[in-house]
Amino acid sequence: MAHMVWGVGGLLNATGGHIPSLDFAGGTVVHVTSGVSALVTCLYLGKRIGYPQTNMPPHSMVLSFIGACLLWVGWFGFNAGSALAASPLATSAFINTHFAAASAAIGWTIFEWFHNGKPTALGAISGAVAGLVAITPASGFVQPFPALLIGLIAGFFCSFMVFKVKSIFRYDDSLDAFGVHGAGGTLGAILTGLFATQSINAIYGNGVATGAIDGHWRQVFNQLAGVSIAWGLSIVGTLILLFVVDKIIGLRLSPEHEAAGLDLSQHGEEGYDLNS
Amino acid sequence: MAHMVWGVGGLLNATGGHIPSLDFAGGTVVHVTSGVSALVTCLYLGKRIGYPQTNMPPHSMVLSFIGACLLWVGWFGFNAGSALAASPLATSAFINTHFAAASAAIGWTIFEWFHNGKPTALGAISGAVAGLVAITPASGFVQPFPALLIGLIAGFFCSFMVFKVKSIFRYDDSLDAFGVHGAGGTLGAILTGLFATQSINAIYGNGVATGAIDGHWRQVFNQLAGVSIAWGLSIVGTLILLFVVDKIIGLRLSPEHEAAGLDLSQHGEEGYDLNS
Amino acid sequence: MAHMVWGVGGLLNATGGHIPSLDFAGGTVVHVTSGVSALVTCLYLGKRIGYPQTNMPPHSMVLSFIGACLLWVGWFGFNAGSALAASPLATSAFINTHFAAASAAIGWTIFEWFHNGKPTALGAISGAVAGLVAITPASGFVQPFPALLIGLIAGFFCSFMVFKVKSIFRYDDSLDAFGVHGAGGTLGAILTGLFATQSINAIYGNGVATGAIDGHWRQVFNQLAGVSIAWGLSIVGTLILLFVVDKIIGLRLSPEHEAAGLDLSQHGEEGYDLNS
Repeated sequence: MAHMVWGVGGLLNATGGHIPSLDFAGGTVVHVTSGVSALVTCLYLGKRIGYPQTNMPPHSMVLSFIGACLLWVGWFGFNAGSALAASPLATSAFINTHFAAASAAIGWTIFEWFHNGKPTALGAISGAVAGLVAITPASGFVQPFPALLIGLIAGFFCSFMVFKVKSIFRYDDSLDAFGVHGAGGTLGAILTGLFATQSINAIYGNGVATGAIDGHWRQVFNQLAGVSIAWGLSIVGTLILLFVVDKIIGLRLSPEHEAAGLDLSQHGEEGYDLNS
Repeated sequence: MAHMVWGVGGLLNATGGHIPSLDFAGGTVVHVTSGVSALVTCLYLGKRIGYPQTNMPPHSMVLSFIGACLLWVGWFGFNAGSALAASPLATSAFINTHFAAASAAIGWTIFEWFHNGKPTALGAISGAVAGLVAITPASGFVQPFPALLIGLIAGFFCSFMVFKVKSIFRYDDSLDAFGVHGAGGTLGAILTGLFATQSINAIYGNGVATGAIDGHWRQVFNQLAGVSIAWGLSIVGTLILLFVVDKIIGLRLSPEHEAAGLDLSQHGEEGYDLNS
Repeated sequence: MAHMVWGVGGLLNATGGHIPSLDFAGGTVVHVTSGVSALVTCLYLGKRIGYPQTNMPPHSMVLSFIGACLLWVGWFGFNAGSALAASPLATSAFINTHFAAASAAIGWTIFEWFHNGKPTALGAISGAVAGLVAITPASGFVQPFPALLIGLIAGFFCSFMVFKVKSIFRYDDSLDAFGVHGAGGTLGAILTGLFATQSINAIYGNGVATGAIDGHWRQVFNQLAGVSIAWGLSIVGTLILLFVVDKIIGLRLSPEHEAAGLDLSQHGEEGYDLNS
């Protein structure tokens, strides 16, 4: 998955640069696409019955927190593993991943502290995931301090998307897949073009500057090209798939099934049996 | 634990073949034995009070699901670790483990969809564990596509054991240890004799066919010999241990303690304190 | 983190020995300091309202157990990783860690079986953590059997601290941070001086005995010196920090906020939303 090369990034390069759109561990192909597809699906499906008048918090903060911690650990395999060897590059991606998650948790918590009056555990884990998403394309290209910065910016930016932008446009993204994965992935891909440095990853040759800070400003546009294609593909592809599935199977449950919950109506099982 | 060699497999080999009963990561010594011992124990102990008239579902699907996911990840260490080195063989065992778990989850879910009308999360995780069990002896001997097949067959076979065979014989196997570990382990050990190939593991010499698909049909009988010994040892050993423990300590709780639950009556603690 | 060298251990050495205070994976700097700081904080803060008249058990044994299991697995990374390479020393630290945790779980459970009448799951996991703490400084210096012994002793000693010493002095250490981390860490650091052997770790030269069992009794005093410094630093440092924070922000909640719980009063969120 390392060093994803986008076709059109290559086209852009043909007009001048020699470096394609950079994406170390697949942030564009995993997070930008999934986040944008989630937004398209939210808009296509419409809101849950009762949203946003009824408050719909996660039912267990404890399990959400455990899940986020497991995700954090698993992400080390995802990003560091994209070095495809137990190498210094893997170490670099590992430590960048950790730093970005930690600083993004702080960033998100600060934002909600000012915005909502209190820092929350849900905010801390949302921020951590936003940081993990944002560092994914950059993880094997940047130094530790820029990784901290990418995480911090992602914590602020993604919480702004979730608290401000979502409430303005009023789409019902129950897991904030767009605000965290779509927005965080897009941000991380662009910042990769800013902070990428050959002192970490000289795959494109010694002395060839890769990121804007090192003087290769064009790389930010290469990144924008890659991200734009991911957005375009995701929007068109998701619309086609939603349309086909809608016509064949249908996408929306009956109001009775939606009220009963998908666990019971579709799978015939409950999360908890409180009598046993 | 790699390349478990069973004595009687060796005896059989003395009559013709050169390859003992194969078991890469100990599926026979862990899963066949534990599953068969569980069946013997179920029959010896008898049913829980109220079974099967009273429905006794797992009390938390959420925790069951988390547990199965942690088990899935841990199994990579178990199977790939049996290569005893970070080698291509370990990679092969790793990927086979993943494929078999995934396809078995699909197989079990399809079976219960037809049998019970709905696919469930409990079915998906039961299937995944069945696939992990079945691939354990084969994991370092087969190619990825046979691993997928072994998993799929295990998903169908183990769900058939749990939904059909258990309800015919009406034994009370509350965790389906026999249906998943005993049946899945036996199936996997036999299928190892079918799909083992020296293109993955040539420990018995280049050019020496190991499995039936490669022309060495006798291997299926070697596997049957190994599995039969495991069954025999488990039945006899478990009966002796149950008899001894029953005479010295006793095996069955008083009906009052069983009704109160073992947590409270034996350990004086509860799973949850809902007041704190 | 490997081979922590304490300054005063070095001073002591200057009076005779050549080996500093030994601490393979940072048991002194992590567990002694945190446990002693916890005790100082308990005494400074005072008891929770209602303690010890009101029983305050952990609200979910199930989640406590899952947490302890994740901690056990994570500790392998902590201790074995302190070898800084995938080496025989890392293997040694890994296996010692596992053995000590297992035997400490048994030790604690036996103690409470005699003391309280029943072995509990909470006792087993508390013991496991005590064993993990105690083996941390010793993990890369001792052989597997001494590791088992260190764990067993830690299981007995830490349960004695929690069941006997805490109830005598009546401080309110809700997570037993002192009884497990402070007491277990101190014990483990001292036992490292007893059992360290150059057959596992000859970093101080071939033929140079490191532990008391090998004839180097002075090492026990080197360890005591290291631990004493950690105690002193923790007590003084924690008191200064508590005093400063108390003056600036305050340490104790209002009784209303304490009764409502910190989740609600400080973070505005609940662990569970039982309506969703």
